[in-house]
Amino acid sequence: MFDFEFHNPTRILFGRGRENETGGELAADGVKRALLVSGRGSAERSGVLGRVRGSLAAAGVDAVEHPGVVANPVLPHALEGIALAREAGVDAVLAVGGGSVIDEAKTIACGIFHQGDIWDLFRGRAEVKRALPVYTVLTLAAAGSEMNKNAVITNPATRQKYSVSSKHLFPRLSILNPELTFTVPADHTAYGAVDAIAHVLEAYFTKKPGTRLQDRLVEAIVLTVMENTEKAIAAPDDYGARAALMWAATLALNGLTPAGAGPYGFPNHMIEHAMSAMFDIPHGAGLAVVLPAWMRWHAERNPEQHVRFARKIFGRDTAEEGIAALEEWFVRIGAPVRLAGVDIAAERVPEIAENAAGLARVWGIGEEYPAAVIEEILARA
Amino acid sequence: MFDFEFHNPTRILFGRGRENETGGELAADGVKRALLVSGRGSAERSGVLGRVRGSLAAAGVDAVEHPGVVANPVLPHALEGIALAREAGVDAVLAVGGGSVIDEAKTIACGIFHQGDIWDLFRGRAEVKRALPVYTVLTLAAAGSEMNKNAVITNPATRQKYSVSSKHLFPRLSILNPELTFTVPADHTAYGAVDAIAHVLEAYFTKKPGTRLQDRLVEAIVLTVMENTEKAIAAPDDYGARAALMWAATLALNGLTPAGAGPYGFPNHMIEHAMSAMFDIPHGAGLAVVLPAWMRWHAERNPEQHVRFARKIFGRDTAEEGIAALEEWFVRIGAPVRLAGVDIAAERVPEIAENAAGLARVWGIGEEYPAAVIEEILARA
Repeated sequence: MFDFEFHNPTRILFGRGRENETGGELAADGVKRALLVSGRGSAERSGVLGRVRGSLAAAGVDAVEHPGVVANPVLPHALEGIALAREAGVDAVLAVGGGSVIDEAKTIACGIFHQGDIWDLFRGRAEVKRALPVYTVLTLAAAGSEMNKNAVITNPATRQKYSVSSKHLFPRLSILNPELTFTVPADHTAYGAVDAIAHVLEAYFTKKPGTRLQDRLVEAIVLTVMENTEKAIAAPDDYGARAALMWAATLALNGLTPAGAGPYGFPNHMIEHAMSAMFDIPHGAGLAVVLPAWMRWHAERNPEQHVRFARKIFGRDTAEEGIAALEEWFVRIGAPVRLAGVDIAAERVPEIAENAAGLARVWGIGEEYPAAVIEEILARA
Repeated sequence: MFDFEFHNPTRILFGRGRENETGGELAADGVKRALLVSGRGSAERSGVLGRVRGSLAAAGVDAVEHPGVVANPVLPHALEGIALAREAGVDAVLAVGGGSVIDEAKTIACGIFHQGDIWDLFRGRAEVKRALPVYTVLTLAAAGSEMNKNAVITNPATRQKYSVSSKHLFPRLSILNPELTFTVPADHTAYGAVDAIAHVLEAYFTKKPGTRLQDRLVEAIVLTVMENTEKAIAAPDDYGARAALMWAATLALNGLTPAGAGPYGFPNHMIEHAMSAMFDIPHGAGLAVVLPAWMRWHAERNPEQHVRFARKIFGRDTAEEGIAALEEWFVRIGAPVRLAGVDIAAERVPEIAENAAGLARVWGIGEEYPAAVIEEILARA
């Protein structure tokens, strides 16, 4: 075990119909006017946005709407949200959506107080000193942003998908109603599962070996995500499966599994961020392509842990059998596992590697992941 | 999955020497004068209390000392602490010790604001409305009180060991340095392990079946506690083992494992509370006696889960084999598994059952656990 600090003050309300409690919760916290951040229409069509509006109105909380957040949310749209939030004088930001909507909401919540270039918060040149309280109503099991302090934003001008992290960005409250994910189509259900699995596996493989409690917590989450993804794809309104997926995805990136596990990295996310910054592919689809490739490259660097993964998750004996089994499972749930599957031509790999290497430097793993190594990894995809 | 609310705002600082950060942390939170609650000398002898005092002094935080907390902490001593805290005008309560010290510190923290009989907070006749911030420096891996909202106190006048629970009782900060447990003797290391295992198994067996994520999290904790208890008993200064035990015991009762698992009870704790209220035995020792007896009584009421336990923890096939294996393991680590092992004569069982049935009524499980049933359970011990 390594030294650590753990602090996750986000409150979770989990269960059917709980989005109807949104207004009452905000009002109880003294919120008078909230910026209501949403995506491009699915929350409107499913009815959740209407119910949240009704709940806010009933509790006397004004809603100033900022819809239109895209997957891989972009800086210019967040800047519009910041301008709107300042103008309207909101005292909280409420996200209704998945990880993209939440991440943009967090960006607005801290951006409203930032003097100067917001992008400095993402490229490591400035720190978040303050943020409006963030509330979320989650509609997708995937990113974990509903219970962590991170936000990822894409800057289209520089083609960079970078992240910000601050204790001020933990949502104050996240409402998790698994019913809201019944309408998530099979492909995005699968991508969300891959994202959650990738979140726990990054530290599982890149940390030093020997912290068995953390290994077991990761394995508990991976097995749970796998069995419930299959169920949710087979029966989209299987409440138990959607609920298990939702909570497992939240626990996958709320700080629990790496606490005490020592230093670790996010190399798969680093490479995928480059891919989706350049080609705007779904994050989980990109991860499904990168993860088996990276695992094949990494297996000889931490053989003990890769063999453990094969045994504990798939009952297989070798690292390669475990990787192949994961890859087969990705294929079975409909996730792409090769660059061609996300329509990226092999000749674009050097460009992706260059982009990812830039992020590696910002994240402090530039020596381990120069562009040449990233090319070597992607050659396996 | 069942509806739930999860909120655990306690901040954890984990690692070697971190008790020296106590003063700085309290000062950063604006604390000027803290009630320093401790036990009967072990923290003094080990030197940790001296280091905490030095850290407070260096940070300019006054310490008003309230030593002498006993195992199974008693109400009169807590009342003395409340009087002292009021008189001294402290603005925080700092516990340096194990679960008993922390529980008394929490009692003082809320008791200072309570008008009327403090015991009403424990017997369910009044609610905690406010508390001073609680800080802890943990010296024993066992109770989990360092990261939860509960406190257990014994009222010697009524021979009742009852608990209070309130969101105001989450410690603001808990400092966990595994080195501080190097001096815990083998027997109390074992009792702490039994306590942590009992904490997760209560819900594991009494909840409804089918929440597999929660099952797996419990199994991760049980396996971790078992392997590291053996290591810590064999080599008391094995940092890795002490660290894994400490963090596993904290996670065992911080709300993580039962979140989403639905309604559950604490029947083993209920029975043990009666035993230690009457005979002042170590809590973990009492649980080691009760748990296998209760499991034998309960196995036919939830056979699927008892078989799962046998398989996942011990690789055995039947409920009884799993129970026997757990009992053998308790014996191996030096924990008693029969009433005689804690010097309780069989003829005292009806009295214990009567006492425990009283607590069952307070906890709302009186119908399931009348005195006759508790006698039936204890007949197996």
